Amino acid sequence: MKAVLLLSCSMLPKAVKRRVNALKRLQVQCANIEAKFYEEVHELERKYAALYQPLFDKRREIVTGTVEPTDEECEWHSDREEEEELAEDVKEKATIEDAKKEEATPEEDPKGIPEFWLTIFKSVDMLSDMLQEHDEPILKHLKDIQVKFSEPGQPMSFTLEFHFEPNGYFNNAVLTKVYKMKSEPDTSDPFSFEGPEIIDYEGCQIDWHKGKDVTVKTIKKKQKHKGRGTVRTVTKQVPNDSFFNFFNPVKASPDGEMDEDSEFTLATDFEIGHFFRERIVPRAVLYFTGEALEDDESEQDEEGDDDDEEQFDPKVSSIQFLFKS
Amino acid sequence: MKAVLLLSCSMLPKAVKRRVNALKRLQVQCANIEAKFYEEVHELERKYAALYQPLFDKRREIVTGTVEPTDEECEWHSDREEEEELAEDVKEKATIEDAKKEEATPEEDPKGIPEFWLTIFKSVDMLSDMLQEHDEPILKHLKDIQVKFSEPGQPMSFTLEFHFEPNGYFNNAVLTKVYKMKSEPDTSDPFSFEGPEIIDYEGCQIDWHKGKDVTVKTIKKKQKHKGRGTVRTVTKQVPNDSFFNFFNPVKASPDGEMDEDSEFTLATDFEIGHFFRERIVPRAVLYFTGEALEDDESEQDEEGDDDDEEQFDPKVSSIQFLFKS
Repeated sequence: MKAVLLLSCSMLPKAVKRRVNALKRLQVQCANIEAKFYEEVHELERKYAALYQPLFDKRREIVTGTVEPTDEECEWHSDREEEEELAEDVKEKATIEDAKKEEATPEEDPKGIPEFWLTIFKSVDMLSDMLQEHDEPILKHLKDIQVKFSEPGQPMSFTLEFHFEPNGYFNNAVLTKVYKMKSEPDTSDPFSFEGPEIIDYEGCQIDWHKGKDVTVKTIKKKQKHKGRGTVRTVTKQVPNDSFFNFFNPVKASPDGEMDEDSEFTLATDFEIGHFFRERIVPRAVLYFTGEALEDDESEQDEEGDDDDEEQFDPKVSSIQFLFKS
Repeated sequence: MKAVLLLSCSMLPKAVKRRVNALKRLQVQCANIEAKFYEEVHELERKYAALYQPLFDKRREIVTGTVEPTDEECEWHSDREEEEELAEDVKEKATIEDAKKEEATPEEDPKGIPEFWLTIFKSVDMLSDMLQEHDEPILKHLKDIQVKFSEPGQPMSFTLEFHFEPNGYFNNAVLTKVYKMKSEPDTSDPFSFEGPEIIDYEGCQIDWHKGKDVTVKTIKKKQKHKGRGTVRTVTKQVPNDSFFNFFNPVKASPDGEMDEDSEFTLATDFEIGHFFRERIVPRAVLYFTGEALEDDESEQDEEGDDDDEEQFDPKVSSIQFLFKS
């Protein structure tokens, strides 16, 4: 299609082609205005982040058990409705399990909402893919995830902050991952501009307690001395799969060329960072209960099929098509 | 997944479930704040619409030939580069065709950019699907498409305005289609809120010249008189496929139930309205030259597969994942 149309364009009378070029120059000006628009949207997001914060603080206090909500704060209409939504068989099972549970559990009041964030990590495919068994006891100590936006006038970025309670694994109270963004058209290709892009990220150093670093494993290796023929066993640290590699700062824009694998890893990382920012943090409880998962499912499936860098259109997608029935 | 998690939720100790309900109440408050956010984004879009307008006015003047751009306004660096982008064989053909064209066409300077909007209609699948041969001569008279946003304080909406030059088909100078939107969480399902939704639309009456209405056709039908057995031929007007049915105000929210066909038609219509607003109008020249088509292709393919109402996520999609290489 494109070739055909460029062809028909090159067939245009010179005077017309000249005018088309004038329109293209106007289009570049539009792209520059659009860049300013997205900067203002970013400002707006910063402004609203401050409005959400008291609610997120309250969430953290309830999750960690620092604050016990009042009866009024806990009123929820549709506990029964929700159960009705479950398929009949599942419901039955639930009722039985429920009954069992109530019999079996003497400890009826743990502190706050135990394993709140870990449950979310386990439920969301994109996160559970990274999660290893040895990560789970560590993530039980995750108290909160926060998103911080860059200050006005600073280069556009957002930071994911993972707040931990004191634990036996590392000394950091907060693990951070900064995503650097850019909201300006590329001068060499202004028409590809579609809004802010993540262009780079920076993890953080985790100050692991001795022997607790799950991102490495120690393997034993037999070495034979070439001259003497003696054998000795050496231990060697090699990388280990772990969610905590998420903080490992593989530079997103290294000086050299990137191979396909690194590009894929980066694309996935950007996607995950974005998902934390836009879905997990703002709607954590819905991922905990599973209510948000149904909506995301089809989307995640589509994304899963696509290894290439993705070109989302922020505006085409900014509206849903929904019926008022 | 959802059932399993709701199940595990119903297994939570009562005290914990109570706290989860408190988080859900906080989440409803978040949804209400989010609704305000989207209202401010809409305001921002209105503000920027005014900044784009002078550029769009200039575009219209160049397209219609009211204004001839200066040499400086027509300078474009990459005419050669673009041609190099074409596959070799296509390029060769283009050169030959080019040469032929230049020989064959004495009329080297038509007015403005002839068939600018019609070419776009023909190039974009979503529009060409609606386009009939009899629509084409009418769309040659299309001068401009504009988007107008609702005034502050008014219910949220946008209007597509199709501006026509005087023509032999209808008297209207402007055909309009209004899309009504809603940016507030549904009280019965606040968590499904994802930003403004199109909830209804309104077309316009086209004042067709006699015999020129392409949205109807006259068919002849033989009628046999039951009693007398005589046969007579009657003419009858029946609906006819045409792009101009786009202005036909099938109510989006009728009082009765909608069948599946109407729902599908509506979903498609919302999608098209949105596409005009977000892609065609802001980037017309790139659809004319074909430069925008490549980017959209994958997206359109995906949409094509999906007959159901679509639930786009405005925020997950608001960022692209792109490499700075």
